[in-house]
Amino acid sequence: MTAPFTDLSGFQDLLAEAPGPDTAARAGAEARNGQLTKPPGALGRLEDLAIWYAGWRGTDRPEINKPQVLVFAGNHGVCAQGVSAFPPEVTVQMVANFEHGGAAINQLSKAFGAEMAVHAIDLDTPTADFTTAPAMSEAEVVSALQTGWTAIDPDADLLVTGEMGIGNTTAAAAVAAACLGGTAADWTGRGTGIDDAGLSRKTDVVAKGLALHTPTDPLNALRCLGGRELAAMAGAIAAARHHRIPVILDGFICSAAASVLETAQTGALDHAVAGHLSAEGAHERMLEALGKEPLLRLGLRLGEGSGAALAIGVLKGAIACHSGMATFAEAGVSDG
Amino acid sequence: MTAPFTDLSGFQDLLAEAPGPDTAARAGAEARNGQLTKPPGALGRLEDLAIWYAGWRGTDRPEINKPQVLVFAGNHGVCAQGVSAFPPEVTVQMVANFEHGGAAINQLSKAFGAEMAVHAIDLDTPTADFTTAPAMSEAEVVSALQTGWTAIDPDADLLVTGEMGIGNTTAAAAVAAACLGGTAADWTGRGTGIDDAGLSRKTDVVAKGLALHTPTDPLNALRCLGGRELAAMAGAIAAARHHRIPVILDGFICSAAASVLETAQTGALDHAVAGHLSAEGAHERMLEALGKEPLLRLGLRLGEGSGAALAIGVLKGAIACHSGMATFAEAGVSDG
Repeated sequence: MTAPFTDLSGFQDLLAEAPGPDTAARAGAEARNGQLTKPPGALGRLEDLAIWYAGWRGTDRPEINKPQVLVFAGNHGVCAQGVSAFPPEVTVQMVANFEHGGAAINQLSKAFGAEMAVHAIDLDTPTADFTTAPAMSEAEVVSALQTGWTAIDPDADLLVTGEMGIGNTTAAAAVAAACLGGTAADWTGRGTGIDDAGLSRKTDVVAKGLALHTPTDPLNALRCLGGRELAAMAGAIAAARHHRIPVILDGFICSAAASVLETAQTGALDHAVAGHLSAEGAHERMLEALGKEPLLRLGLRLGEGSGAALAIGVLKGAIACHSGMATFAEAGVSDG
Repeated sequence: MTAPFTDLSGFQDLLAEAPGPDTAARAGAEARNGQLTKPPGALGRLEDLAIWYAGWRGTDRPEINKPQVLVFAGNHGVCAQGVSAFPPEVTVQMVANFEHGGAAINQLSKAFGAEMAVHAIDLDTPTADFTTAPAMSEAEVVSALQTGWTAIDPDADLLVTGEMGIGNTTAAAAVAAACLGGTAADWTGRGTGIDDAGLSRKTDVVAKGLALHTPTDPLNALRCLGGRELAAMAGAIAAARHHRIPVILDGFICSAAASVLETAQTGALDHAVAGHLSAEGAHERMLEALGKEPLLRLGLRLGEGSGAALAIGVLKGAIACHSGMATFAEAGVSDG
């Protein structure tokens, strides 16, 4: 597959042209939901999820048979500023762990019947340190967006995007501040577990990046402050919209990548739900800014797509009920 | 299988003799958790769940291969007081729906690989109306406890108990007040969806039951104010403890049945986690009283075991990560 864009302007145009849900399928799913053998509203958020999913899939009685989990990995020049508790070599080591099936996301993908693939993007060429230069050239960020866009299986019926990249909560905090407003301190957190001194240093690094770069649009914020794995996630989430594949967003870094899309084009995340609330401090603020209520609140802060993969189970449960339950008429049950 | 008790006193004795977790397996699981390829604590509550489950299963690397979902149904004499939005015939109609595979719990059991069975308990003999007489005789409540106890598959590795019984949020509210303290208004909610006048009437009914019966112990509170499906759930949860089978509690009615056990014997629910927070108003208060933090908060209020069955996915994800992930040494990943 070739990506249908060759520069940031072309990608922006695709966001503007993105399809909406099938309103007839959505209405059909709403009608069906009202006839199922349960008191009205008794399945709570599962009902909303099923109706939302039905609209995007274009059928009032959808199934989830082919979830896809895509993990993108990138390295970050800003690691030279001492922003992470782990050394940058861990990115490539963890990619090997993904490839050998040993990481959390491998287990979760298997547990919920998802096909998982990992895309390591130019790990031996970290992005530039954004405290001194733009993280990426336009060609580099476009290439990463294309990697994400073309990684999508058009036959998938659900997408989770995850990431690995030592230093990437720093990049995500800077991107979030540039796209959503607020200060470096509002968005900077402990990532994999830095101490107080590290957090203070990391906040200064984000502030320095924000002071140096004054991107005029979200896609250039992604270019100047982001990373290849963030761009690839943004590309994959945009491609999923193009194919009407619903998306479950993961934690802080995935949501920061997604916020680029929503800021570039209001409604660009209408096909996405928030899988979970991460323990990374600023994720709650980010989900509020995106208007997304997380499905799970279990204190995860691993990345890799792990929180979103766990939420596949919730969505599968919602769709199983919606599409599998008997109606009052079918079951001969009095409806109150 | 025959239940190892013939009266309430014998059941109380079994609660006192219940086994605890395997502390060596638990310690082994804690040690393993510290070696897995993730930053410490990054899987949040999934880590605590896996260690808890390992202790009860007696192995540091457990699996979940055989979850069991048991749905108990009963009818309630107190329905004569107009406490439900649905007529009592719906109990037997929904049992038929369970048997034909058409209810929400059927879909969720299938989605999460659980064996499901439904036990309709004397539906043509409702409990007595507790505003005028004890809901059950000792023989009746013991029989229901035995039904629950013997419904357990001793080879199951996880248990969910659910229920169906028009009028049973009324019984559950009365049992909760008797076991956990507080007023009728503290525990009475809208159930399947009664209006304000209905809620007021239902609260008065619960208050009347509490005024009429002054049970001196939790098992007699269950007898005087509960129902057969509540007693069966209590029996099944106690039997699971006997077999060291971990339990996921469902919503308001299941938790009320469980609160009988915890009140009768402190620690009787140590082998249980709360699957979800129900939208039934007083469930939050009940879980606080039991010291249980719910895994899911999705606004379900259906019963049947539906919220707990959905949480099987969360627990499966936790165990898949814990038992399937590579250690830092196995994967050759630097541990910070």
